[in-house]
Amino acid sequence: MNHGLILKLSCPDKPGLVAKIAHYASEFDANLVELNQFTDRERGKFFARLEIDTSKLQVPLEDFKAGFDVLGKSLSASWHFRELPYKMRTAVLVTSTDHCLNEILWRTKLGEMPIEITSIIGNRDTCQKIAENAGVPFHHIEMKEDKAAGFQEIDGLLEAQDVQLVVLARFMQIMPDWMCEKYHGRMINIHHSFLPAFIGANPYRQAYERGVKLIGATCHYVTAELDAGPIIEQEVDRVYHHHAVSDLVRLGRDCERSALARGIRYHVHDRIIIDEQRAIVFPD
Amino acid sequence: MNHGLILKLSCPDKPGLVAKIAHYASEFDANLVELNQFTDRERGKFFARLEIDTSKLQVPLEDFKAGFDVLGKSLSASWHFRELPYKMRTAVLVTSTDHCLNEILWRTKLGEMPIEITSIIGNRDTCQKIAENAGVPFHHIEMKEDKAAGFQEIDGLLEAQDVQLVVLARFMQIMPDWMCEKYHGRMINIHHSFLPAFIGANPYRQAYERGVKLIGATCHYVTAELDAGPIIEQEVDRVYHHHAVSDLVRLGRDCERSALARGIRYHVHDRIIIDEQRAIVFPD
Amino acid sequence: MNHGLILKLSCPDKPGLVAKIAHYASEFDANLVELNQFTDRERGKFFARLEIDTSKLQVPLEDFKAGFDVLGKSLSASWHFRELPYKMRTAVLVTSTDHCLNEILWRTKLGEMPIEITSIIGNRDTCQKIAENAGVPFHHIEMKEDKAAGFQEIDGLLEAQDVQLVVLARFMQIMPDWMCEKYHGRMINIHHSFLPAFIGANPYRQAYERGVKLIGATCHYVTAELDAGPIIEQEVDRVYHHHAVSDLVRLGRDCERSALARGIRYHVHDRIIIDEQRAIVFPD
Amino acid sequence: MNHGLILKLSCPDKPGLVAKIAHYASEFDANLVELNQFTDRERGKFFARLEIDTSKLQVPLEDFKAGFDVLGKSLSASWHFRELPYKMRTAVLVTSTDHCLNEILWRTKLGEMPIEITSIIGNRDTCQKIAENAGVPFHHIEMKEDKAAGFQEIDGLLEAQDVQLVVLARFMQIMPDWMCEKYHGRMINIHHSFLPAFIGANPYRQAYERGVKLIGATCHYVTAELDAGPIIEQEVDRVYHHHAVSDLVRLGRDCERSALARGIRYHVHDRIIIDEQRAIVFPD
Repeated sequence: MNHGLILKLSCPDKPGLVAKIAHYASEFDANLVELNQFTDRERGKFFARLEIDTSKLQVPLEDFKAGFDVLGKSLSASWHFRELPYKMRTAVLVTSTDHCLNEILWRTKLGEMPIEITSIIGNRDTCQKIAENAGVPFHHIEMKEDKAAGFQEIDGLLEAQDVQLVVLARFMQIMPDWMCEKYHGRMINIHHSFLPAFIGANPYRQAYERGVKLIGATCHYVTAELDAGPIIEQEVDRVYHHHAVSDLVRLGRDCERSALARGIRYHVHDRIIIDEQRAIVFPD
Repeated sequence: MNHGLILKLSCPDKPGLVAKIAHYASEFDANLVELNQFTDRERGKFFARLEIDTSKLQVPLEDFKAGFDVLGKSLSASWHFRELPYKMRTAVLVTSTDHCLNEILWRTKLGEMPIEITSIIGNRDTCQKIAENAGVPFHHIEMKEDKAAGFQEIDGLLEAQDVQLVVLARFMQIMPDWMCEKYHGRMINIHHSFLPAFIGANPYRQAYERGVKLIGATCHYVTAELDAGPIIEQEVDRVYHHHAVSDLVRLGRDCERSALARGIRYHVHDRIIIDEQRAIVFPD
Repeated sequence: MNHGLILKLSCPDKPGLVAKIAHYASEFDANLVELNQFTDRERGKFFARLEIDTSKLQVPLEDFKAGFDVLGKSLSASWHFRELPYKMRTAVLVTSTDHCLNEILWRTKLGEMPIEITSIIGNRDTCQKIAENAGVPFHHIEMKEDKAAGFQEIDGLLEAQDVQLVVLARFMQIMPDWMCEKYHGRMINIHHSFLPAFIGANPYRQAYERGVKLIGATCHYVTAELDAGPIIEQEVDRVYHHHAVSDLVRLGRDCERSALARGIRYHVHDRIIIDEQRAIVFPD
Repeated sequence: MNHGLILKLSCPDKPGLVAKIAHYASEFDANLVELNQFTDRERGKFFARLEIDTSKLQVPLEDFKAGFDVLGKSLSASWHFRELPYKMRTAVLVTSTDHCLNEILWRTKLGEMPIEITSIIGNRDTCQKIAENAGVPFHHIEMKEDKAAGFQEIDGLLEAQDVQLVVLARFMQIMPDWMCEKYHGRMINIHHSFLPAFIGANPYRQAYERGVKLIGATCHYVTAELDAGPIIEQEVDRVYHHHAVSDLVRLGRDCERSALARGIRYHVHDRIIIDEQRAIVFPD
């Protein structure tokens, strides 16, 4: 769908929710093209994502969105409208490995993901050439001496570029709490293990020592607690005793870029609703 | 959900369908617990499956179902209501291998699948003991001499037992056209290859000769054209050059029983809508 | 191969090992049908498994095995010969769930696994009927009041039946240290999580709370440290936000029985060499 | 291993093969680091791949290789020595899609695959910029008017650049028979379906129409019969009814690049022995 709206909504569960929401749309000739809904009966919560074709809408788009207020409030809902088409302004933070960055650039160029990469920010300059080839501004922010200043500088860049999504594409720095809070639900990390196994540093070495038969990667939202944010996507691959740590690193790269790419895809298509520690994901 | 309705519906696509259907339900305090919908924009078709909690329904269930007629017809829809809880009366047809049969019996006993196995029908008597242990009637129908008579006899049993679903659990006989038509959409087969590769006999031998690196199994509805009915589910497993045909048979068994079990599950939970040559499956 | 030997061997790595071992075999017209070898260059260790056809052996089998002593000792090796065909005497310990037990019984009956099930031992009597149908002795050992006595009784049974392999097929009791030591390398457990994530009780509940997108099962040797023994095999399946804990339990059953079945298969075919905390597995 | 030899060998099976080959190596202090062997008992053939550390070799490498002649001939073997380290001179043929090309370039740059990309040859110029960024010569060979001349020109380039491996990275032209023969065992294609299903054009459209639940890609050696050469690697991904053909294309890209990358990896590491219609692959 090229023109339209995506509506994400969550509220306490009660009968008639779909009818009310769908009725609101149909009243103004907005057509539901896709509807995903989840009723969490254990917690009494309702979640929905609607893709709405507005090409025959009888009222101005702004009025349609504003008019939903009465209904949304009456349902005690949280909701969000996204106008299509759009491109999400996205910054990619890297250190030195480039496979996740390459994956994002490649999928963006192909048009697979509706994002505009505002900048690539590295605490090393390894990825500068890749950024140049892709025609994306690269910012090298030195963080060895004064980490706090570095994060301030990064935040300044994100603010200045009006960034909507921050992707930590193997950015080997622990984000400070204030940034985790500020970018809550807008900062995605790829961790190179099958969380919650092997939290922290050197997960492939940990996996090797433990002798696991599957390694993995986890794409998750960043929260102040390390590697404990809502999980968006995970991927695994089979490994054998003859694989050295360097093989796990090699095989893991494929898990990482695939889990991260899908995670970003779900996020930028508004297919995720964060529900406390968990991510409701309506995959496509 | 223990009490309620499942509604499956397909109709030409047009705006406002979800609103109308959901409104009908909510008008009588029927609560949509799960809603899956698919708009086939290429073909202009709409498909939906609704799980409806009727515990607070304001009208008799029969009236609720009957009252849907006006709406359904106005949408030029095909639809079907299923009352929960229910058990689908199911016959399992076998020859001599028992892994698919065992899988069905085991999942049925566990309560994973809401089916009642009315009978196990074998053109050999190999599975008789298993049937006895499970407390299910076994019918041995000899088909070597007179196949046509055998199929007549099977049909007679299915009729007499009021069977709703026929599962060909590695039943090594080609069903006659008249049975394919009579049980259209109610007869499920498991084919031991990744269709449409290796149609017909000895697919594992074919796969071995071709040197494929993945083998598979396909669960599909039976139609008159061999192995060409709507595909419900497929499963694959990795194989290597050192695997003999007997290894492919062994590994394939796991693909077969898992694809068949999921296929049956989707069918008995009314999660499938057949759309000409394709099966719309809303997995759980 | 119906008659022959399997040789498992591990020793410090040095040049010429394969030549020496293969030469010993060929000298007496023993034919290597399959040879798997792994050189752990990081640790300087050599591991090998050989399947040897002895149908044309020029010397008595006992002499062939005994004669290997000189070579084996000169290599500072640990090694083990297994004569084919054989059936490994195996006891299965259960509590109340039966899916892993059923899987073992089914594969045994099919001849997939060369084991003889000496007995099924349950701390509840739930699986008694299954044992009877399979024609396997069932022992109900009550463990609520006096666990220590229960374990003594189990050990007595294992001794009396000359059991070579103990399978904990969802046996919901923590084995005492002395049994872990006594049956080291001969006791296999299936843990219902993707270890090392979710050690201990209720892993599916833990997985649900954490919101993982893949659940798993781990087949491992039992050691005194809970769920920390050498991992033999792991399996995962994809889960979604709409899956309740009961769904994870259901989907996890398939991971459990498949990981356990493969794990047992590798063990009884002597395809595993335990190397401290890790299991070298040469899969077939 | 940085310095050494890879020996690939196939011959009629008979007892003592491993002993003889390993003995030859050990006699001159060549150390077997990895040994993979496969005895095809059905066909009476023996296949092996040996990775040999020659750092302590007692004779010149050339002598070691030449001296193997007597043994090899006495076994009626075909064999091949590869000296490590090496880089395989590889040409990549493309049309307009770039995902497979990008994958190869990325893995080459990372050092994952020991290849030197001599040139990228396109029958369109779409990938020229990518080639330039990677510092690889790009040749645009127009093939609309005169295909035969185009293939002659390609062959001329491959000859001039002394190319050892030709990769058809979504090269949308059917190779002429004479090139298939000339580059037999040295030309790898990626077909965008799970062969032997959906041979020929538009496999994703075919898959969509058939309503399969898994799509795939197949990496194979090119032979004169279309899409019928020995299969090296296959990959699949799950698809759903709501996926349009364009989604299959998108999801298939990941199958394609991953199957192709692994296929090339196996080839350049000499892990493949072609046995008539089948490829013996010793994966790492």
